[in-house]
Amino acid sequence: MNKEQEILKEIRKIIPNSKKYLFDDCAIIEKNLVVTSDTIVQDIHFDLKNYKPSQIGWKAMAVNLSDIASMGAKPLYAMVSLSLPKSINLKFTKELYKGIQSCAKKYKTQIIGGNLTSSKEISITITLIGKTSHRGVSTRSNGRSGDLVFCTGTFGDAAAAYLVIASKAKQSHKTLLVKQDCFVVNTPRNDKLPLKSLKTPTPQINLGHKIVTSCNRVAMMDSSDGLADCLIQISEQSKVKIIVDEDKIPISKEMKKACKVLKKDSLDLALYGGEDYQLVGTISRNDYKKIKNLKSIKIIGEVVNGKSTFLKQKNNKLVKLSMKRTYAHFK
Amino acid sequence: MNKEQEILKEIRKIIPNSKKYLFDDCAIIEKNLVVTSDTIVQDIHFDLKNYKPSQIGWKAMAVNLSDIASMGAKPLYAMVSLSLPKSINLKFTKELYKGIQSCAKKYKTQIIGGNLTSSKEISITITLIGKTSHRGVSTRSNGRSGDLVFCTGTFGDAAAAYLVIASKAKQSHKTLLVKQDCFVVNTPRNDKLPLKSLKTPTPQINLGHKIVTSCNRVAMMDSSDGLADCLIQISEQSKVKIIVDEDKIPISKEMKKACKVLKKDSLDLALYGGEDYQLVGTISRNDYKKIKNLKSIKIIGEVVNGKSTFLKQKNNKLVKLSMKRTYAHFK
Repeated sequence: MNKEQEILKEIRKIIPNSKKYLFDDCAIIEKNLVVTSDTIVQDIHFDLKNYKPSQIGWKAMAVNLSDIASMGAKPLYAMVSLSLPKSINLKFTKELYKGIQSCAKKYKTQIIGGNLTSSKEISITITLIGKTSHRGVSTRSNGRSGDLVFCTGTFGDAAAAYLVIASKAKQSHKTLLVKQDCFVVNTPRNDKLPLKSLKTPTPQINLGHKIVTSCNRVAMMDSSDGLADCLIQISEQSKVKIIVDEDKIPISKEMKKACKVLKKDSLDLALYGGEDYQLVGTISRNDYKKIKNLKSIKIIGEVVNGKSTFLKQKNNKLVKLSMKRTYAHFK
Repeated sequence: MNKEQEILKEIRKIIPNSKKYLFDDCAIIEKNLVVTSDTIVQDIHFDLKNYKPSQIGWKAMAVNLSDIASMGAKPLYAMVSLSLPKSINLKFTKELYKGIQSCAKKYKTQIIGGNLTSSKEISITITLIGKTSHRGVSTRSNGRSGDLVFCTGTFGDAAAAYLVIASKAKQSHKTLLVKQDCFVVNTPRNDKLPLKSLKTPTPQINLGHKIVTSCNRVAMMDSSDGLADCLIQISEQSKVKIIVDEDKIPISKEMKKACKVLKKDSLDLALYGGEDYQLVGTISRNDYKKIKNLKSIKIIGEVVNGKSTFLKQKNNKLVKLSMKRTYAHFK
């Protein structure tokens, strides 16, 4: 158990009814509403050297929308709390807020309030209220033995992009770009490339809603803290064993190329990297028939009786995935 | 207009429907729910020298509950987002969280989730969801010509307490205590004294609810940013002139005593000090009959046709109250 998990464990002891509310991406309250909060902090989740203010704003909203997506819900309202150093000028603040609003608008979310305070570092906390589908919501405890493990998109792109940013500080920017031109940022031509996705993640609102409304029972999370984190949490909350196949984990060509240049293990980044904001979950084989036509969905493993989460390597050997290696704020 | 108001003005331009949502202490959403968010930041709203962790936690929850009180609503659910430096230990975090939970429990609020991240300074953002009375809610725009201006409690105590803390750094702690023993903190004997209230403010949930359910129409705010701020905001949103009487503004004996020692103007602190978390509003003379038995309620002025907010001095001269002097985060 890392320090973050230790703090969370203690907090859950202090809060009554924590089992009812504190184990999913969103809390479910009366009248089909879900609520979620997420904070992004300067130099932890973004920095001022590599991010434009509008990208910081977009990211603050998108990471919250991703939690709404993981419940199969649709967003309705947002509260935006900004903490800004006195040195930040009005132009920066406006661009930041425009980024927040443009993401809110794209996903039909009304900003209804928030807070403004001064601080030493930029920090943005957004609370979202969403509405669940009439079919219900997904929860982390919905997994059952016999289920299939599915995911959307590819994994490790954001982590690789982060390493590219970090390595740029040491290497010549240009050399890196020539070797893996896929990591050019924010040019219209390279619209879907990983480094952009690190700054302007795409919450899978429609896909999450489609999955939950099509299936009878879904256990689902968003992969903000990495693929391994999702699998381990669902396995723990559902009290089942999860086995994923190494060669089924979706990794983009660009990410593989970047890992070659960076001399990094692409599988490792895919499992533990985080910040991909894809969906990961389990559904019954019967439910899978209803969504197999969605081209973003890929089956990567299965759920069996037992506990813990394993990676089946190409040589059929099972390796246990560890929470100790997932992203931790208080290492 | 100060910088904070300038930022808010620009933000309101960016957000659609801001008139509907962004001018009260809480946003009102469908199904009688109200939502509010407030952040407290280290060295802005508290410091580690003068506050125990449990007091920081209490304050974070109480300032939010005070916004719920100002709408005449009852709190239901809270989302708690903690940003903590890595140097903060588990014991501190637990005490902080116990402070949050004890305030939540006192006002029957269920914590349903939140966020935990690392940061350079301690910052706590809480979002509360509350339920309005079947009689409706108070809004800042509900004031009408002919109304009476009411308030609860006394004003300037928190500001005076803050000055006592600040002056302790310079003066001998003991001297100050002898001269105005009212400012001893946290002894059971001095339970209701100002310096304690700075650290463990009391949200006026029941009183706010009682006022809104008893009256037909209420314009109300909480005095987190000072009495003058409340009066000016209600005057502006209701498009009326407000006149309050200097000699009716409730000031505690202890506060007056402290101001004498500190050589400060007690009226000035009462008007502009802030952090008192009392209720300030306007109601019709007819509605006043229904709540005049509540001993915490005091009439301090009246609402007439016109605009702006004035203090009627003892010599009957009117002095305009200025937003420029209210608390500003970005001076």
